[in-house]
Amino acid sequence: MTTSPNLQDSSDAGCLYGVGTGPGDPELLTLKAARLIAESPVVAYFCRRGGRGQARAIVDAHLGAGQREMPLEYPVTNEIPHGSDEYRSRIEQFFDAAAEQLAAELGAGRSVVVLNEGDPFFYGSFMHVYLRLKERFPTRIVPGVTSMMASAAQLPTPLTMRDDLLTVIPGTMPIDDLRQALQGTDAAVIMKVGTHRDAVVGVLRELGLDERAWYVERASTPEERVLPLAAIPEQVPYFSMIVIPGRGVRR
Amino acid sequence: MTTSPNLQDSSDAGCLYGVGTGPGDPELLTLKAARLIAESPVVAYFCRRGGRGQARAIVDAHLGAGQREMPLEYPVTNEIPHGSDEYRSRIEQFFDAAAEQLAAELGAGRSVVVLNEGDPFFYGSFMHVYLRLKERFPTRIVPGVTSMMASAAQLPTPLTMRDDLLTVIPGTMPIDDLRQALQGTDAAVIMKVGTHRDAVVGVLRELGLDERAWYVERASTPEERVLPLAAIPEQVPYFSMIVIPGRGVRR
Repeated sequence: MTTSPNLQDSSDAGCLYGVGTGPGDPELLTLKAARLIAESPVVAYFCRRGGRGQARAIVDAHLGAGQREMPLEYPVTNEIPHGSDEYRSRIEQFFDAAAEQLAAELGAGRSVVVLNEGDPFFYGSFMHVYLRLKERFPTRIVPGVTSMMASAAQLPTPLTMRDDLLTVIPGTMPIDDLRQALQGTDAAVIMKVGTHRDAVVGVLRELGLDERAWYVERASTPEERVLPLAAIPEQVPYFSMIVIPGRGVRR
Repeated sequence: MTTSPNLQDSSDAGCLYGVGTGPGDPELLTLKAARLIAESPVVAYFCRRGGRGQARAIVDAHLGAGQREMPLEYPVTNEIPHGSDEYRSRIEQFFDAAAEQLAAELGAGRSVVVLNEGDPFFYGSFMHVYLRLKERFPTRIVPGVTSMMASAAQLPTPLTMRDDLLTVIPGTMPIDDLRQALQGTDAAVIMKVGTHRDAVVGVLRELGLDERAWYVERASTPEERVLPLAAIPEQVPYFSMIVIPGRGVRR
């Protein structure tokens, strides 16, 4: 057995755990996540100001009175355009400050679980504090069920079979790059469709992929919506996705 | 709430559950999988002749004496080349027969959980019986933690950040297609490296991706190996992968 490169247990500092909570259904938490959350002296999570966030809601049943919660409140959400320099600068400052809050606990010998919807290493928020702290403290990542797989689970066709190539594409991608990525793949998942809805749907129609595509919103939660692409709503939330299952090519 | 397209509860037949067991660590099972496995009258799993298979081993703690186990034994594994017509024909016949075994239970009103390592809709065995049965019986898919995310969790860098494009590539892909897929992406996972090791490593070196690439075998199990690509063994098993984390591009 090879020692994993991110286990560094030779210090007296607390361990920073990045724990995937899964996509939304509290039952899609792993046994490991449930145990670590219940055992951890401090549980941190990202949320909007005044809210507690989806990750905290997912794990509610596993938190007890003796544990300290550390909400990490985003300073801005939609007030400033996401691509703007001001947004980026404020978000980076926020992650700096959040990392220092976590460092204070870790340095005092207390382990901290940081919750992350889905999986911590798959387009998560956790990684922004992880990258700031990984050289200073022991860290462990507990993988989770991604929203991508929870969305695929609601479709009548597997996401990938046999030798299918799968491409995962952020909806923010420029349209020419999106077209190219879709042309070269068998299966595709377009994440964070949000305001890019019209452009993405346009490319899917142009490439004749619309017939095979599904729109999925909040998979595995009570608010789940699963629709053929032809029925995609006019306005879609940021955390929505389009899934194009593969067809099981052989190579 | 929209009814998911693969829930069809209006029959007296049993329900076919495709349940992801996660990548290997029994603690990476979801709470939902653990519950369904413990409650199901019949639990089926794919395995080699004479073995019980990895999926069955993962869920061992959740099976009780009152449950019936249904091993679905592959007729061949490595005796015949995987690309050959004979292999394909024997495997298709095997899936036909396995589907009929399951249909007999479902038709008699008994639900069946079919175990699937990782996630049932992500390169799994389950989907081959699923596609044969989904028009005849109610079905549900319980997503799981993929070996891809379990492998990424062992690396010192997130798999995808910000606007990274991720491509999941079967190691069986012809070398020119592999080169093209790698050139157009930010992050990549090459699955089932196995006998394609030399060709895959050659392309990674040619493209200068070898410095960022990791070799991962049996992630989350006691036999886990995590190595920089430079240290990849000369011979690697079928279920091994190469992971190239993204770098968090902004678009």
